Amino acid sequence: MPKMKAAIFVEPGRIVLDEKPIPDIGPLDALLRITTTTICGTDIHILKGEYPVARGLTIGHEPVGIIEKLGSSVQGFREGQRVIAGAITPSGHSAACLCGCSSQDGAGTKHGWKAIGGWKFGNTIDGCQAEYVRVPDAMVNLAPVPDGLTDEQVLMCPDIMSTGFSAAERGKVRIGDTVAIFAQGPIGLCATAGAKLCGATTIITVDSLPERLAISKKLGADHVVDFKKANPVEEVMRLTDGRGVDVAIEALGTQNTFEAALRVLRPGGTLSSLGVYSSDLKIPLDAFAAGLGDHTIVTSLCPGGKERMRRLLSVVESGRVDLRPMVTHRFKLDDIEAAYDLFSHQRDGVLKVAITP
Amino acid sequence: MPKMKAAIFVEPGRIVLDEKPIPDIGPLDALLRITTTTICGTDIHILKGEYPVARGLTIGHEPVGIIEKLGSSVQGFREGQRVIAGAITPSGHSAACLCGCSSQDGAGTKHGWKAIGGWKFGNTIDGCQAEYVRVPDAMVNLAPVPDGLTDEQVLMCPDIMSTGFSAAERGKVRIGDTVAIFAQGPIGLCATAGAKLCGATTIITVDSLPERLAISKKLGADHVVDFKKANPVEEVMRLTDGRGVDVAIEALGTQNTFEAALRVLRPGGTLSSLGVYSSDLKIPLDAFAAGLGDHTIVTSLCPGGKERMRRLLSVVESGRVDLRPMVTHRFKLDDIEAAYDLFSHQRDGVLKVAITP
Amino acid sequence: MPKMKAAIFVEPGRIVLDEKPIPDIGPLDALLRITTTTICGTDIHILKGEYPVARGLTIGHEPVGIIEKLGSSVQGFREGQRVIAGAITPSGHSAACLCGCSSQDGAGTKHGWKAIGGWKFGNTIDGCQAEYVRVPDAMVNLAPVPDGLTDEQVLMCPDIMSTGFSAAERGKVRIGDTVAIFAQGPIGLCATAGAKLCGATTIITVDSLPERLAISKKLGADHVVDFKKANPVEEVMRLTDGRGVDVAIEALGTQNTFEAALRVLRPGGTLSSLGVYSSDLKIPLDAFAAGLGDHTIVTSLCPGGKERMRRLLSVVESGRVDLRPMVTHRFKLDDIEAAYDLFSHQRDGVLKVAITP
Amino acid sequence: MPKMKAAIFVEPGRIVLDEKPIPDIGPLDALLRITTTTICGTDIHILKGEYPVARGLTIGHEPVGIIEKLGSSVQGFREGQRVIAGAITPSGHSAACLCGCSSQDGAGTKHGWKAIGGWKFGNTIDGCQAEYVRVPDAMVNLAPVPDGLTDEQVLMCPDIMSTGFSAAERGKVRIGDTVAIFAQGPIGLCATAGAKLCGATTIITVDSLPERLAISKKLGADHVVDFKKANPVEEVMRLTDGRGVDVAIEALGTQNTFEAALRVLRPGGTLSSLGVYSSDLKIPLDAFAAGLGDHTIVTSLCPGGKERMRRLLSVVESGRVDLRPMVTHRFKLDDIEAAYDLFSHQRDGVLKVAITP
Repeated sequence: MPKMKAAIFVEPGRIVLDEKPIPDIGPLDALLRITTTTICGTDIHILKGEYPVARGLTIGHEPVGIIEKLGSSVQGFREGQRVIAGAITPSGHSAACLCGCSSQDGAGTKHGWKAIGGWKFGNTIDGCQAEYVRVPDAMVNLAPVPDGLTDEQVLMCPDIMSTGFSAAERGKVRIGDTVAIFAQGPIGLCATAGAKLCGATTIITVDSLPERLAISKKLGADHVVDFKKANPVEEVMRLTDGRGVDVAIEALGTQNTFEAALRVLRPGGTLSSLGVYSSDLKIPLDAFAAGLGDHTIVTSLCPGGKERMRRLLSVVESGRVDLRPMVTHRFKLDDIEAAYDLFSHQRDGVLKVAITP
Repeated sequence: MPKMKAAIFVEPGRIVLDEKPIPDIGPLDALLRITTTTICGTDIHILKGEYPVARGLTIGHEPVGIIEKLGSSVQGFREGQRVIAGAITPSGHSAACLCGCSSQDGAGTKHGWKAIGGWKFGNTIDGCQAEYVRVPDAMVNLAPVPDGLTDEQVLMCPDIMSTGFSAAERGKVRIGDTVAIFAQGPIGLCATAGAKLCGATTIITVDSLPERLAISKKLGADHVVDFKKANPVEEVMRLTDGRGVDVAIEALGTQNTFEAALRVLRPGGTLSSLGVYSSDLKIPLDAFAAGLGDHTIVTSLCPGGKERMRRLLSVVESGRVDLRPMVTHRFKLDDIEAAYDLFSHQRDGVLKVAITP
Repeated sequence: MPKMKAAIFVEPGRIVLDEKPIPDIGPLDALLRITTTTICGTDIHILKGEYPVARGLTIGHEPVGIIEKLGSSVQGFREGQRVIAGAITPSGHSAACLCGCSSQDGAGTKHGWKAIGGWKFGNTIDGCQAEYVRVPDAMVNLAPVPDGLTDEQVLMCPDIMSTGFSAAERGKVRIGDTVAIFAQGPIGLCATAGAKLCGATTIITVDSLPERLAISKKLGADHVVDFKKANPVEEVMRLTDGRGVDVAIEALGTQNTFEAALRVLRPGGTLSSLGVYSSDLKIPLDAFAAGLGDHTIVTSLCPGGKERMRRLLSVVESGRVDLRPMVTHRFKLDDIEAAYDLFSHQRDGVLKVAITP
Repeated sequence: MPKMKAAIFVEPGRIVLDEKPIPDIGPLDALLRITTTTICGTDIHILKGEYPVARGLTIGHEPVGIIEKLGSSVQGFREGQRVIAGAITPSGHSAACLCGCSSQDGAGTKHGWKAIGGWKFGNTIDGCQAEYVRVPDAMVNLAPVPDGLTDEQVLMCPDIMSTGFSAAERGKVRIGDTVAIFAQGPIGLCATAGAKLCGATTIITVDSLPERLAISKKLGADHVVDFKKANPVEEVMRLTDGRGVDVAIEALGTQNTFEAALRVLRPGGTLSSLGVYSSDLKIPLDAFAAGLGDHTIVTSLCPGGKERMRRLLSVVESGRVDLRPMVTHRFKLDDIEAAYDLFSHQRDGVLKVAITP
């Protein structure tokens, strides 16, 4: 059985590069030969044991690659095609999928709904920090990459671009909106780009790292707030002349940012939450108008599927958004442990790393 | 200056019937002679000092009456017409109103948004537990009552019917939905009727008072759960065969009901909250899928305005919903203190009282 | 190769019962043994040669049956289960499906969109007026029938109930709406039930057959208009006191009904069209406010997929809507030619026929 | 009674500058001293007698000016403020306004709906091609202009920017959409900018004038089609590789452009129509999939009100869209007849003219 290299979760604290058999595929699957992938903040949660996955699992959910082999029932693709697949790989046939909520895909469950069920790569099945990955339900999930786009240009589509944009979309950002975005890591930066793309005309972003705030401005922020220099809630209220924002986006996953997002909302506003939280959240009574403020809170898991990917690829191809500045470091797959070390410690101004097998 | 009787907030613990001048009106106002009104749960919060209002204020926000006098700029109505006005009386010209969120009407504020600002009667201006009430922005707020409907038939339109229905509307209940409603007081019962009216086909309601559960069934509940006899979260999950609900409605204003509503939601579901909370809320991490469940939480304040009232009156007129069983007791305005006593202690199976000057 | 009986399109004017091989199935398919099916108005278009299908095709797209056999890749169902499938059988993996518009499923096409592409049974693949039918993409399309419901109770779910309800859903009928529905054949009657289910409080229906108007009233019409006795546009305007309707539903497919629907709309209203038209349509300038009336016109093809079917089955199971009065005649499959004769000539007050192999 | 100059409709073919009394104002009105205004395509329809208005009416509906005087009931503004008002001036209190459809404002009518009723300036009341204009319902309609913006920068907000953007908004253009826009006059150009602002990533525009196509590219067009050089339907299909577009915008008001817009739609797509038509429209059966294509057709009248204006002003202020290149000519009010002559004959590459009293 031919072997390949793969980044494997061994135990909390240890993701190592090891050998594994190249995956077999079933009739609906595709086998991708990975050409570029990356590491996500979620992978660091896995590394630290904060998000549990099975020992021995291959990590990674952001694949760019070449179709090596197609399952016997797969139509509409050909071997040798360059494609991406989303971090979320819905089945297309669960109740969740048929309700337009495919990130909560419950294929195989009694009712077809499963929380976070659409996230399979590097979570419930082997992922793509490897030389090869099996893509389930290939007809739902493979999206051809337009000629002329490099791997790095499309590397953000599978996860952070899809996730970040969804904050603006689920928050229903529209022409003329004022939007605040708390945290400008990779996801938050994409949320900034997404808010601009949806027509927001006043975008206020909050972080403390100067290089992130600089990219934030490039991607659409009209004002940036350094939370180490000023109270971000006060700053947002000052910048909006006391009005507050139409939509506040939480892009970190902490009580602080969640609460700040709620506190800057105008009545009737929407808190669009992207963060992965690690403890219970508190909704302060005063910031919530005792439940009478016509507030909306929405959470979003990264949308997936080939049509989503096609749309994001068209954003890249059109030049509307250029996320290349976010790839700050490059590693060979052989050096992925060093990449994890750099990325998990947020050294050297790292935003995203490109990993090439 | 002619006088009238009015129920006045004196201090926490004391709402008394007293005399006051009949209100003057401005060019955009109307003066209503109240023919029937009622007491709301919110009035009890005021009585207890839990919701602060100015001393000396006339309480009450659910008016049915006759137009006694119209302001000089008011067109489209005539004196002697029988009308209702909503509990919420938007100005029609604030930014909030122009955004379709008139319950947060901020007329007179810098940006036109004010949390709970649309609620004026018995909150920021004199209310309608009196012989007369001044209705501000009459052209926005007066809705003629169709002939053939009694005062009691339309008495729920200004507040609890508008509020209860909004839970289903804001929760986007649609044909074939499964909905759970926590608490079956007046608001919760109206939410039940609203969920049915929006097409929910499995409605599960939770309360403990047999008479409320009985009315709940009449208004649309397919299953009722007595929370004193069974754990309501477990019961809802059992009744839905482990699936959970599409929309969960909170109609009480406590951590318990809020949390239960969240725990019975399927992934991607919506928690539609009506309750007036009196302390911070906790969102349990597990019930929230760590922020990755594509959940939505919406809160709603009673929608107002004459078009809203017209629609609710048409619901009554069409016979689609009959809320008359909810009027369990009747009092003269002269006896309103007794009515407060009965209602605040929830004695004698009281749901709503009709007060007639 | 075992044989079965099937109703086959031979040429315009001739659909005959003949023998055919029982279908083979592929890995994603299911074979259903039909227990009950029906004839649709669209089948009559096929019979008359107005809607072209391949000669030799088995007709019929409304199956109730038992799973006889499952494809090798199909999971989540078992042989012997009683199920329905929608008239529209989406693939689950086309761009159209992934955009929530699965009736326009373009699986197999370059971009994944194909007009009317989701309608396959009796259109582009063999249908279900037969002893057996092959259901494509079984995991997307099979919906178990709840115990306790008869075949006839669920016979309308695959097509006319789904289509009729979609008129109200796509037209965004909501609580308090006034709705007019032009034509009360099977589809129009279901639109009436759907409008009521969505909260319409004034429903005006138009037809000329007394038995249809009688059922219309049972299903939700507040007023019925016999277009042979009165001008329906004038009647709707009279019944609405000159206001017009929020949503007008066209359920026949003619210029007359389309135009009447447009003429009764209030400014800003929605014309929701279900009809299958057979010639160009004219939009009269005056009824269209010269393009400045904020009108919306939506057309809908029957929504399909197992989740849609599940919701419709729950409507039946809940008792919210009872369409059994619509089954006016019953035939054995052996007598289907007689059924076609009766149904195509609209004899004997026929609404829907139940066909049992 | 003090006099002012005003452009007055005398009879078909004649709009002349004449003297009129400066308007009186009522308690809810404001008097504006016009500093800049412009001529709209609709004014040319009036000039030609194609759109009937009363003889003697002052024309013009795009005011930039200074508050000269406020009605006695108007609060929240001060004399001397620089403001704009929308071309559409809703009352804020009609049923249409309370339904979020204020362009069809029926204030004063029985049911509160009137087709095109929100358009008052230069249509049913005196307009703003004059030294002064009375603004009705000032609290609903006046929007302060941010310091730092010139009159010309905000001159498009009252009408063409609001109208053009609404095509994209009502068409629900979203991230990754492909959009075609037929005609690139002032309104069509604004629709192009609006489509980009909503996230469209492939924008194809159609016109024949090189200078318009050049501005079209600046405002967001990815591809421009000269309909004199190629069949626009074929070109759009070629540019989209046979897929068609998600949203097609009609911005002229002819059968040709309407039909072309329909023909380039993918199944399930939306035709968003802005044009003012002058004859009945035909919907070709084939382009409409016989009514089964899940198509949507929406028409839009310019949205108005101060909150709409505030949002558009924020678009200008943010620099997201710069419409200054559209002001191609400048005239004194004294020379407005020459301006009409130039504009009505579309001479000298004119797009919009700025008129200053």
